[in-house]
Amino acid sequence: MPVFGEPLAIPSAGQEMYDLAAEIFPIFRSLTGKGVRKTLEILGSYIGRDGIQLKIHEVPSGTPVFDWTVPKEWSIRSAYIEDRQGNRIVDMEDSNLHVMGYSVPADRWVSLAELKKVVYTQPDQPALIPYVTSYYKERYGFCMSQDQLDSLPEGDYHIFIDSELFDGSLTYAEVILPGETDEELMLTSYICHPSMANNECSGPVVLAALMRYVNALRNRRYTYRFVLNPETIGSIAYLSRNLEHLKEKLVAGIVLSCVGDDRDYSLIESRYADTIADKSLKCILNAQGNYSTYSFLKRGSDERQYNAPGIELPVVGFSRTKYHEYPEYHTSADNMDLISPAGLQGAYETMVRWIYCMENNGKYRMTVLGEPQLGKRGLYPTVSRKGSYDEVSAMFNLIAYSDGKNDLFDISRIIGAPPYDLVPIVRTLEENHLIRREACGSK
Amino acid sequence: MPVFGEPLAIPSAGQEMYDLAAEIFPIFRSLTGKGVRKTLEILGSYIGRDGIQLKIHEVPSGTPVFDWTVPKEWSIRSAYIEDRQGNRIVDMEDSNLHVMGYSVPADRWVSLAELKKVVYTQPDQPALIPYVTSYYKERYGFCMSQDQLDSLPEGDYHIFIDSELFDGSLTYAEVILPGETDEELMLTSYICHPSMANNECSGPVVLAALMRYVNALRNRRYTYRFVLNPETIGSIAYLSRNLEHLKEKLVAGIVLSCVGDDRDYSLIESRYADTIADKSLKCILNAQGNYSTYSFLKRGSDERQYNAPGIELPVVGFSRTKYHEYPEYHTSADNMDLISPAGLQGAYETMVRWIYCMENNGKYRMTVLGEPQLGKRGLYPTVSRKGSYDEVSAMFNLIAYSDGKNDLFDISRIIGAPPYDLVPIVRTLEENHLIRREACGSK
Amino acid sequence: MPVFGEPLAIPSAGQEMYDLAAEIFPIFRSLTGKGVRKTLEILGSYIGRDGIQLKIHEVPSGTPVFDWTVPKEWSIRSAYIEDRQGNRIVDMEDSNLHVMGYSVPADRWVSLAELKKVVYTQPDQPALIPYVTSYYKERYGFCMSQDQLDSLPEGDYHIFIDSELFDGSLTYAEVILPGETDEELMLTSYICHPSMANNECSGPVVLAALMRYVNALRNRRYTYRFVLNPETIGSIAYLSRNLEHLKEKLVAGIVLSCVGDDRDYSLIESRYADTIADKSLKCILNAQGNYSTYSFLKRGSDERQYNAPGIELPVVGFSRTKYHEYPEYHTSADNMDLISPAGLQGAYETMVRWIYCMENNGKYRMTVLGEPQLGKRGLYPTVSRKGSYDEVSAMFNLIAYSDGKNDLFDISRIIGAPPYDLVPIVRTLEENHLIRREACGSK
Repeated sequence: MPVFGEPLAIPSAGQEMYDLAAEIFPIFRSLTGKGVRKTLEILGSYIGRDGIQLKIHEVPSGTPVFDWTVPKEWSIRSAYIEDRQGNRIVDMEDSNLHVMGYSVPADRWVSLAELKKVVYTQPDQPALIPYVTSYYKERYGFCMSQDQLDSLPEGDYHIFIDSELFDGSLTYAEVILPGETDEELMLTSYICHPSMANNECSGPVVLAALMRYVNALRNRRYTYRFVLNPETIGSIAYLSRNLEHLKEKLVAGIVLSCVGDDRDYSLIESRYADTIADKSLKCILNAQGNYSTYSFLKRGSDERQYNAPGIELPVVGFSRTKYHEYPEYHTSADNMDLISPAGLQGAYETMVRWIYCMENNGKYRMTVLGEPQLGKRGLYPTVSRKGSYDEVSAMFNLIAYSDGKNDLFDISRIIGAPPYDLVPIVRTLEENHLIRREACGSK
Repeated sequence: MPVFGEPLAIPSAGQEMYDLAAEIFPIFRSLTGKGVRKTLEILGSYIGRDGIQLKIHEVPSGTPVFDWTVPKEWSIRSAYIEDRQGNRIVDMEDSNLHVMGYSVPADRWVSLAELKKVVYTQPDQPALIPYVTSYYKERYGFCMSQDQLDSLPEGDYHIFIDSELFDGSLTYAEVILPGETDEELMLTSYICHPSMANNECSGPVVLAALMRYVNALRNRRYTYRFVLNPETIGSIAYLSRNLEHLKEKLVAGIVLSCVGDDRDYSLIESRYADTIADKSLKCILNAQGNYSTYSFLKRGSDERQYNAPGIELPVVGFSRTKYHEYPEYHTSADNMDLISPAGLQGAYETMVRWIYCMENNGKYRMTVLGEPQLGKRGLYPTVSRKGSYDEVSAMFNLIAYSDGKNDLFDISRIIGAPPYDLVPIVRTLEENHLIRREACGSK
Repeated sequence: MPVFGEPLAIPSAGQEMYDLAAEIFPIFRSLTGKGVRKTLEILGSYIGRDGIQLKIHEVPSGTPVFDWTVPKEWSIRSAYIEDRQGNRIVDMEDSNLHVMGYSVPADRWVSLAELKKVVYTQPDQPALIPYVTSYYKERYGFCMSQDQLDSLPEGDYHIFIDSELFDGSLTYAEVILPGETDEELMLTSYICHPSMANNECSGPVVLAALMRYVNALRNRRYTYRFVLNPETIGSIAYLSRNLEHLKEKLVAGIVLSCVGDDRDYSLIESRYADTIADKSLKCILNAQGNYSTYSFLKRGSDERQYNAPGIELPVVGFSRTKYHEYPEYHTSADNMDLISPAGLQGAYETMVRWIYCMENNGKYRMTVLGEPQLGKRGLYPTVSRKGSYDEVSAMFNLIAYSDGKNDLFDISRIIGAPPYDLVPIVRTLEENHLIRREACGSK
């Protein structure tokens, strides 16, 4: 058998991503505020080991961003419900899901019936605390398990929330790692969810590990853009500041969300499933094995904004088990037991393969007319006998479709070989001056 | 939940269509002649209640129309078979299917064996009288059930047909209801079949009810063309006089045939199934529920002529159970029991929905960049919790694909929502200045 | 029923093709040398009966042909293995598969262990002698059944090969039969395999019979190119001399291989399965009945070269059971019992139908607007009754799609009628001046 180019080596980063997730898990995050900044500080410290600088941006409350307005900043110091005996029924110190995001201050004594009006539960999962927010209307609320609510006796309850809504700012962060060209690949996730591990400590930590991976890549072709923002309003704010540039430079982007469990791999397609982001990630996932494809109708994270009418950037979503599709989603069961070093590593490896294939992508064309004589170059068994053909069929098939029309992902699809296994074959042919890379095919 | 625009209200017209069908059922129609004129008179009287005028056209016998020639007019006064005892074996007074259409005069005594040469039966449906015509060769014939023919004893039989073929004219009728533009929608059916209820009293009466519906529409965008003609030669004559105009103005047309029973809904596609008529009607039928699609290979009514090479107009066929596909087709069993007010109403409602969607069709485009903030307009639940997303997903999905590329039917297909349910959503967004209608997308 | 044009008459040539195959079967062929020339002499003699001249070309050893070099000519006089007692273990006189193609001279005494290093077997088919070649590296070898090898006792064996590799030439042959135009159809097969009947005495003999068929065709539209060459290097040499001409003139080509057995029919698609060669042959095979389609990934004969990057000619492969897909492939079991007159005749008939359809292909357009009145031309039953429509539906459907957009194969696919049955219908319509042939649609 001919020896092809070296295959891709993928670092093992699962444990350090898991540890990083455990570090940011307890922080009380919301759309805005200290939790977001603290989270970014920890992530920045992690990538700072390699000298990578996380650039922090603050967008003042009230700033118009497209059809939206940046909300007030929210700060919370304390939130609990107490009974007459001073027993804390719930306290945000125990779980930061207990208080509804963006709750306004409160200090009242209420009956059990009145209390129930401001308590949210998930009745079909009675043991779990749900995750509930109320970003754009001033109100307050608590979350607890249905079981706990059902167990509360009649009586008076003290509702106490020491929070503040004030003119502050919305925080997001970016890292840009320049490459040989100013064409960009973008990877993004969000940092606005409180203590839930898969959704969404997993995305930022995989993103952070990928920053280190990309930073270490020699001779990278693309410029890499990493973005961490609060979901929806954060990406809208980000797009309002960067749309023109992204329209011009972005080749493909991926929103990472829920990338820490051990179950499925998932692709959320772009609006028409027709971008290089769709084609490339689908090709990788298909080569890796089982995965689920969700149409854009099943979108739910920032791919919504990147694909919105008028924005229309080539961005897809990537998850292991997709948000909305796993039972622990948006509850207290989405904890550090739900994610694992192996789960994070699987998502990380997928992204590394994607980067490897995108970097090596191109439309390839043979330099000779007709089939080349591989035998004289030691690339073909010289004894022809029944059965020997199949061994070099991947190289022959790649050659057959290297006519300048197909990129690596097209060829992968046509000949049924993993795109990352084609890269070494291409290199071998390049070393033999049998093939050349033409247009990139990515824009 | 947001309140969207008002849904479509559809009049109940089933009983009056059924009564009208009963009134025209007994008339002895053929390609030409008094029966056609009497039928049009009754239909004209029905629509005349609303002041709508049926415009009658006469095309003289012998007129060349494309590759064809308008045939002689046929008139029949009496037709029967009698035995030696003066018993009437069959008489057109009992059923006007007994005499073959366009039979020439006859007055002969014949043996049973000779009689059988001019009698047509349907052996596989021995109890039914078949419907048989001989338009373009001068001959005569009778139709009876196979059972009756088998029961006839040997003996002499008197064949008597008092008919006439003479230079007269072919009659067709049209109603044109102008709209804001001179772009046209066309609905057509035929009036050449004798006493058969589904094929074809149903088509003309549904057409007549639709004339009244369209006439009552305020601010209609399209001009509506309704055509009633004898099948094949009638539509050929019609096209020979109107082709240039239709080529320029016709956006979509539907041939209605067999629209009175309670069974299936059917679409007969245009030649390449690629017109707005195909897309729109298919979209409506798909949203309504079960239906059958027949390729153009299964055509059989005037969609043949509208789609013929060189004609190539955007016209499809619409039926409940399609001609050729129900057992009573072209027999005496296609009587007033086969159709029903509910059956006619179903076809009528489908056409009303089609008109409603065509009138509201367009390529829509969002006026804001990115996803609009529906919450601040009261169009979105402000508490975000697990499960609440689906409630407004139809609006979000419509927004996502309102990028100026898709018309209402495209969006319906992409997002899986009935096109007539999208109209109120579009109106709500229009009222909020979030969307605008661009090109019509119908031509 | 209307009488359409005369259907195609196909000669019966099975027995004479089988006899011709039997005549060339014993000859010891390889890439180059006397065997090839002797085979061509016999084939030339067969077609010479009709005055057709086989044009022989010799390409000198060492000639560069694209990325390849024409190899030395190989000549072999004797090859055997003997034991101490003078028993011939194997002898090329018994089967010319016993000696590996292109073996260099040898004259050695070896132990059984050493012998085994130069003996090739097919262990999963232990009773059969495999077919093995070593074209591009100087070595020698023998082939025998696994059973025989296992039965050899320890001892000394005399290896003797009296062969020669020398600067000679590579031989190929062509026949060009001119037509009304210089647009070409090409049929090709190969003549480098030793005594195997299906692969590959069958291809040359079917090709030879087709030369006689085409030669007898009056008024043929196309120029026909028949090519017989050693596989791979032969077609590369041929292309290196004829590429520019073929790029300009070739409309469609077929590589015939393994066309003598009674089992499957097979199509090997071109690279993108998008040529007129694909469309036409697929249409014929589909009309004939069951067949297998293999993607270009399953290629293996000279369609490889005709489709290679930069060559990109419209050429497909045609087989009965495809090479690699039948158990006798490349073994001594591929003998004269594997092929039959009926098997060869089936392949021959398929090719004759293909030629008939290609000759009559074109984009047809009706000369009248709308449906023509077939009745007045005696082409339509004048009595219209239930059931009578289907009888002329093929003619009506052909008319419906004769709009200048579709060729015969497109219409066949759309209306579901065999393309060779459409030709007589087209002729009838032409005689009635109702249709005209426009662009050929083949280039």
